[in-house]
Amino acid sequence: MSAVPTVDPGRVLSDLRELARRTGGDDGARRLAWSGEWCESRRLLGERLKAIGLVGDEDEAGNLWATLPGTSAERLVLGSHLDSVPNGGPLDGALGVFAALEVLRALAEADVLPATTVTLVDWADEEGARFGHSLFGSSAVTGALDLDALRGLSDADGIGLPQALADHGLDLERLVTGLDSGLAEAFAYLELHIEQGPVLEAEGRPVAAVSGTVGVERFRLRFEGAAAHAGSTPMEMRSDALLAAAATALELELIACRHGGRGTAGTFEVRPGALTVVAATAELGVDLRHQDAADLARMRAEVLRAAFEFAAGRGCRVEEKMVWRAAPSAFDPGLIERVRSAAEAVGGRATPMPSGALHDATVVARVLPTAMVFCPSRGGVSHSPGEYTEEEDLRAAIGVFSAVALELALGKEQAEGARR
Amino acid sequence: MSAVPTVDPGRVLSDLRELARRTGGDDGARRLAWSGEWCESRRLLGERLKAIGLVGDEDEAGNLWATLPGTSAERLVLGSHLDSVPNGGPLDGALGVFAALEVLRALAEADVLPATTVTLVDWADEEGARFGHSLFGSSAVTGALDLDALRGLSDADGIGLPQALADHGLDLERLVTGLDSGLAEAFAYLELHIEQGPVLEAEGRPVAAVSGTVGVERFRLRFEGAAAHAGSTPMEMRSDALLAAAATALELELIACRHGGRGTAGTFEVRPGALTVVAATAELGVDLRHQDAADLARMRAEVLRAAFEFAAGRGCRVEEKMVWRAAPSAFDPGLIERVRSAAEAVGGRATPMPSGALHDATVVARVLPTAMVFCPSRGGVSHSPGEYTEEEDLRAAIGVFSAVALELALGKEQAEGARR
Repeated sequence: MSAVPTVDPGRVLSDLRELARRTGGDDGARRLAWSGEWCESRRLLGERLKAIGLVGDEDEAGNLWATLPGTSAERLVLGSHLDSVPNGGPLDGALGVFAALEVLRALAEADVLPATTVTLVDWADEEGARFGHSLFGSSAVTGALDLDALRGLSDADGIGLPQALADHGLDLERLVTGLDSGLAEAFAYLELHIEQGPVLEAEGRPVAAVSGTVGVERFRLRFEGAAAHAGSTPMEMRSDALLAAAATALELELIACRHGGRGTAGTFEVRPGALTVVAATAELGVDLRHQDAADLARMRAEVLRAAFEFAAGRGCRVEEKMVWRAAPSAFDPGLIERVRSAAEAVGGRATPMPSGALHDATVVARVLPTAMVFCPSRGGVSHSPGEYTEEEDLRAAIGVFSAVALELALGKEQAEGARR
Repeated sequence: MSAVPTVDPGRVLSDLRELARRTGGDDGARRLAWSGEWCESRRLLGERLKAIGLVGDEDEAGNLWATLPGTSAERLVLGSHLDSVPNGGPLDGALGVFAALEVLRALAEADVLPATTVTLVDWADEEGARFGHSLFGSSAVTGALDLDALRGLSDADGIGLPQALADHGLDLERLVTGLDSGLAEAFAYLELHIEQGPVLEAEGRPVAAVSGTVGVERFRLRFEGAAAHAGSTPMEMRSDALLAAAATALELELIACRHGGRGTAGTFEVRPGALTVVAATAELGVDLRHQDAADLARMRAEVLRAAFEFAAGRGCRVEEKMVWRAAPSAFDPGLIERVRSAAEAVGGRATPMPSGALHDATVVARVLPTAMVFCPSRGGVSHSPGEYTEEEDLRAAIGVFSAVALELALGKEQAEGARR
């Protein structure tokens, strides 16, 4: 035992290797939420917690909590998620959970009572890979769930979400929601995650503070023209739904660039979909993201206007079908600055960057001061066995995350001691 | 009996109504080749032939022939096809068969021996709706079949084409090919068909001569970019296969317009096809048509160049997969002029028009002087229960078709008598 907590990023890397040994392989991570291999990943976490005298508890939403008491009942919450998509990567989620564990381990091994209580959380079903509802556990705890919608969800085999929860010993009707939960008395939430994008790698930065999560407008545009024979219908007598959709997809890219946001047409479905028939209908799936709510609204309006104009110009009609939307989620300025300065000090990004992807921190930030730490993803690749971050960058990011966490847990003075 | 053959278009309309009563309905025509209802449509034709003392014979390809002898063994062949697509229209194919019957009927009822033998043909499986091979019977007779390819074809239920032929009493291995067939001693082929396009309706013309069939280049363009997260991947760091394909589809339209041809992108398939993922691959189905072989080749070259440029500009690759091609098929100038002048005389189109769709006449024209007569399709609609032509236009087109047929069968002098 030592008087000062000592974080060892090597132990995080070692835990991640053991996790991959038990629940991964050449085909990637298999920690699908509610599955046996997800439970196996939690057994590993339980073993590590036990080694430092802690026990994890599951709440009614399946989130796992482990708490190290401090002088005050005020709590710092650190975490991420162990669940993965099928054929997922070794780092997505798991990195943040085992980095949080390392902070608890360093504190438990040191001969020091932290100023605040420190809690690790492993959120349940962040990915939503089986039932299509991501951020399940963190949404439950922050009061953001729509129980009616959840009751109707089922997986590819027709098994309902309520049944899957029951098989795990949980009762959908008894979900905790709101702050009478693991977040009671919490004053801050901190999460380390891989970027899942190519920005940090391109910039050559090992770590960055995250400013918040972009807002999302997700909808489908259904263009309706008229089927026609590809051979006998002159070009000027067509109402080609495919071309109206194609023109909109290209315009969408310009609109996203003009606003400094992101715009993606990831689906394109054509009926009848025959080589010899002019398309009667084409449905374009659109995903727009921006960190600023007003810019996001303008992007959506411009895409809709473009769609209507391209449709009208070709004698087609178009209708919008809303899929999902989320307002931008801003993180806490004070916490962001702590992460930013710690990152900059080790050669990380000098300015915070937005997260284009959603994280548990996105919903937690709506009820609690929150910050995130990003490290690079090689090639921007995630949700794939090819997900990879250089060890050097992982060590830098774990260092920034744990330094900020210890500073918050110990108070600035105690933390200075820990760093010496 | 009269000394001059008298064609009555009303009898053709009456036969078509009876055909629809037996094998059609609210859901359209059901005369799928080799089916019971296709055989039923031939039974009706057989009854009408019997009434004028003729019997139809099926050849080894399933084509049905009925011959009225003339002074000479030289033969004029008139025909089209009774088979339809599922939920097809009442006129596609059947109009031409019953118009040909009416010519035979007028000759048989008249007290006159035609100068030439006149043969009706009902081609088998023009549509190719079940096995994906159109123009089956006419291709067999003109020697244009690839037996190896046919042996491998099967329908949606997994039944092979050889088996379907065997069920109909035919042996694929004994197919007649070439002119030792029903076309032996033929000197001309004439076919009446609906336009299946919107041109004649838009021009307000009841009938037109057809100059030939356009050539076709049909291929798929497979664009390969890189999957990327829609939220975390900046616009400038993407290789979006969907956008490369969309730009090509729009350029294809311009290229077709510039050359006065037709260009259609009727399929658009995206992988992984998720709202939140930049498309890794997009496959565009392309169909190009032009009556001039050199223009058609230029169109194809320009589309390929555009595809390569759009792909390269986005960091994608593209490859072409050939699907099918056909050279333009020109009809016989002398026969075209006979049809054109007869059409013009009744207010039809003053100039011949190309057919953008394929017909049995397309392949027959490669071995025999051929011409076609078109009548309007309301809204350009075909292959649908909504297929419709005004009765007045049908009468005009049947009139033009039979006038040219009688002129060829009787010689100009006899035909003048018939017209008086």
